[in-house]
Amino acid sequence: MAKNLTKRSEDYSKWYNELVVQADLAENSAVRGSMVIKPYGYAIWEKMQAQLDKMFKATGHENAYFPLFIPKSYFSKEASHVDGFAKECAVVTHYRLKNADDGSGVVVDENARLEEELIVRPTSETIIWDTYKKWIQSYRDLPILVNQWANVVRWEMRTRLFLRTAEFLWQEGHTAHATEQEAIEEARQMLDVYTEFAEGFMAIPVVKGYKTESERFAGALDTYCIEALMQDGKALQAGTSHFLGQNFARAFDVKYTSKEGKEEYVWATSWGVSTRLMGALIMTHSDDNGLVLPPNLAPFQVVIVPIYRGEEQLSEISVKANEIKKVLEEQGISVKYDKRDTHKPGWKFNEYELKGVPLRIAIGPRDLDNGTVELARRDTLTKEITGIEGLAGKVQQLLSEIQANLYKKALSFTEENTHKVDDWEAFTDTIENKGGFVSAHWDGTSETEEKIKELTKATIRCIPMDAEEEQGSCVFSGKPSSRRVLFAKAY
Amino acid sequence: MAKNLTKRSEDYSKWYNELVVQADLAENSAVRGSMVIKPYGYAIWEKMQAQLDKMFKATGHENAYFPLFIPKSYFSKEASHVDGFAKECAVVTHYRLKNADDGSGVVVDENARLEEELIVRPTSETIIWDTYKKWIQSYRDLPILVNQWANVVRWEMRTRLFLRTAEFLWQEGHTAHATEQEAIEEARQMLDVYTEFAEGFMAIPVVKGYKTESERFAGALDTYCIEALMQDGKALQAGTSHFLGQNFARAFDVKYTSKEGKEEYVWATSWGVSTRLMGALIMTHSDDNGLVLPPNLAPFQVVIVPIYRGEEQLSEISVKANEIKKVLEEQGISVKYDKRDTHKPGWKFNEYELKGVPLRIAIGPRDLDNGTVELARRDTLTKEITGIEGLAGKVQQLLSEIQANLYKKALSFTEENTHKVDDWEAFTDTIENKGGFVSAHWDGTSETEEKIKELTKATIRCIPMDAEEEQGSCVFSGKPSSRRVLFAKAY
Repeated sequence: MAKNLTKRSEDYSKWYNELVVQADLAENSAVRGSMVIKPYGYAIWEKMQAQLDKMFKATGHENAYFPLFIPKSYFSKEASHVDGFAKECAVVTHYRLKNADDGSGVVVDENARLEEELIVRPTSETIIWDTYKKWIQSYRDLPILVNQWANVVRWEMRTRLFLRTAEFLWQEGHTAHATEQEAIEEARQMLDVYTEFAEGFMAIPVVKGYKTESERFAGALDTYCIEALMQDGKALQAGTSHFLGQNFARAFDVKYTSKEGKEEYVWATSWGVSTRLMGALIMTHSDDNGLVLPPNLAPFQVVIVPIYRGEEQLSEISVKANEIKKVLEEQGISVKYDKRDTHKPGWKFNEYELKGVPLRIAIGPRDLDNGTVELARRDTLTKEITGIEGLAGKVQQLLSEIQANLYKKALSFTEENTHKVDDWEAFTDTIENKGGFVSAHWDGTSETEEKIKELTKATIRCIPMDAEEEQGSCVFSGKPSSRRVLFAKAY
Repeated sequence: MAKNLTKRSEDYSKWYNELVVQADLAENSAVRGSMVIKPYGYAIWEKMQAQLDKMFKATGHENAYFPLFIPKSYFSKEASHVDGFAKECAVVTHYRLKNADDGSGVVVDENARLEEELIVRPTSETIIWDTYKKWIQSYRDLPILVNQWANVVRWEMRTRLFLRTAEFLWQEGHTAHATEQEAIEEARQMLDVYTEFAEGFMAIPVVKGYKTESERFAGALDTYCIEALMQDGKALQAGTSHFLGQNFARAFDVKYTSKEGKEEYVWATSWGVSTRLMGALIMTHSDDNGLVLPPNLAPFQVVIVPIYRGEEQLSEISVKANEIKKVLEEQGISVKYDKRDTHKPGWKFNEYELKGVPLRIAIGPRDLDNGTVELARRDTLTKEITGIEGLAGKVQQLLSEIQANLYKKALSFTEENTHKVDDWEAFTDTIENKGGFVSAHWDGTSETEEKIKELTKATIRCIPMDAEEEQGSCVFSGKPSSRRVLFAKAY
């Protein structure tokens, strides 16, 4: 199957689109811009969800569920928020169909028009802060630390599987606090959670930073983000955490009585990651043979493929294969034994390579005699013959090694493709011909940012949190700057 | 708090509505008919989800995700299906808002009208079978055993928290099979899974049965269901599993090539349970003091409340309480230690009674001296003083006992309120004055079923699967009948 996969060097974008479909992750649906997430892709997403959910709960958050629909008037209460989302809203206007008078099928029943249109949530700040108003009276009701797993809709004109879809799945945390300080700490904490998740669990190195004013979430005072570098040198925003100040509390009149008996507006954060992370996963690790999955995210970490002629050999091998499966599973390793007789071993090898299974065990009649198996690593595509005795320990160790190796490899790539640049010519040349993160001085104005974007398509991905103070002059305007920011073309 | 709860005997419906809100399970939102599921309620739903998901996977199913929106034309492809849902569809007609010309706010942008309206899924058969068409060519592609966790929208005119809401959360299984027999077996298997879940996990006894033709799912050849009896004598449909025959395969032209090389239409099932189960849970077990939760579903199974005067006593008690908490948690028991100084013990006792925490441990200074605690059971409202030594074993055993007791109690209630009735006067009298399940003969016609519904508001809940052959005459028409069916007023 992988033989039909376009090479990354030929056309990275085509490679990505083909891979998502060929590896059974997702496909386009009949609904413009909406994808179907297939079982194999969804199983990866479930692993992300489970880990994130655990991390959210470990930091004191609870899950809840808020309505899919938001009344138009609520949606408009926060001015910059509605500005940011109004152009991409799916709008429900009617609540009934009826048979067409001419018998041609069903049509919208014009008598069933809603008094007020409903917006399909593109994000839930408004409906949630409308709810928090009822939950919050006193400082005793704070903080509220709530997360929601949900689908959201943003009517994007140009869509791509996982990266930009009209409907996507995500989690959105929405917290309410008594003080500005506490809200900022929460927003920072969740960025750290995302960082730990991306790097430690998904093996994706990220840069933590602040968004510039023009790249902030609509309604936020500050947006923190993690940015990752894809293999084609484009950046991908992998998660954001927003300090919302008192904007939504003011818009929805949410006040609390402090310990001292004073009425104050409540401070807010929101933070989210989405199925977009699937795109980041694919584009960070995969290769021309297909998907490469970190063991933490693999729906099954090991696949066992029998090499045999005839039923008798298969049944002998199956005894051994099932023994191995059992021993591995006892160590908490997930294993699939594929003994389908409808496909040849070579076909299966390609299939599991395409699907990114971290380790493949092949076992044939000679292995039975020798007490060995053939062990193949997906990340390095290397093979070795190894004894069945002690296999579980070996597999365990290899899985850790693969997880670590993928991170290391991606980190080297990111470092090698982060370029310090100090003049406009080098800047445009790097953006145009090398790609990657470009670390450069910027004068801090939206005008310059906009100009650079117009001229090069590069945007400021973030002002890195660990950026050192460094005097310099803006790569575009020459005006003074006190720290470098990261530019890149981005997904 | 519970002192404000209406008694069940006074007004069952009011009791339910108050309890859902007071126990922090859910509340109405600004969007007509859409609820907010609060963290405590959502934590219960998460436990249901986790258990069901495990059972689905154990029976070979995988999760996937399909679009929220369904093109109107797809929705209409199966005639009885669209008839069943057309009157309660939320319809998306536009994809953009804009600023009103008169500056009064945002309005729907009439230039952004969709060519074809999109229906917010009320159920996903149509979009899924449109997808399966691409997945199925040969018998090798079958069976497909897929489940989806999702939100759905049915525009109900009269809504009640959990029981009937415009938007609700559910799971919907959609399977595709090569043969009729296999599809029927799948639908039956999933009904068994639901039964095991309801009885074994939620402690809710159910009757398994077939729906009559008029109560079937729109598009099904057969609908199997589990029906539970609530404390007010009304029935509640707790889950359904549908044998869809080849209806959706025909509507979406989904054929497969059999082993013998013949083209055949694919056979289908679908099955689902929803947040409605939260209503069943509440109305099966709870009492005038509030919620009663089976230990399997309790967000925390044990609450520890300290009884103290002054900080010093609190800190002494806290040492012991935290020890107990640790020991219990090591046994896999979930525990909350509530040492808030903002509320008195009596207030906390009421609060956790209202929230249905299965066991309460109170610990005061005298207990410290004596090495004891006070242990209170939520289901029986009984208390005892018991030694701290061996507490974990005791708690473990009590939790099992509570789980079993709740089921037993509900089963007795269902049995006591299932009435065999053989003539019309007794039928109407029972329906009117006693409620419960009425087991009676029916002539098998939709006309009689409809008449009985008109006259008594009772519907045929199901034809029980374990109903014995028994000659009799229809309670309404006097015509011959060969088995009893179950009637009841229902939610």
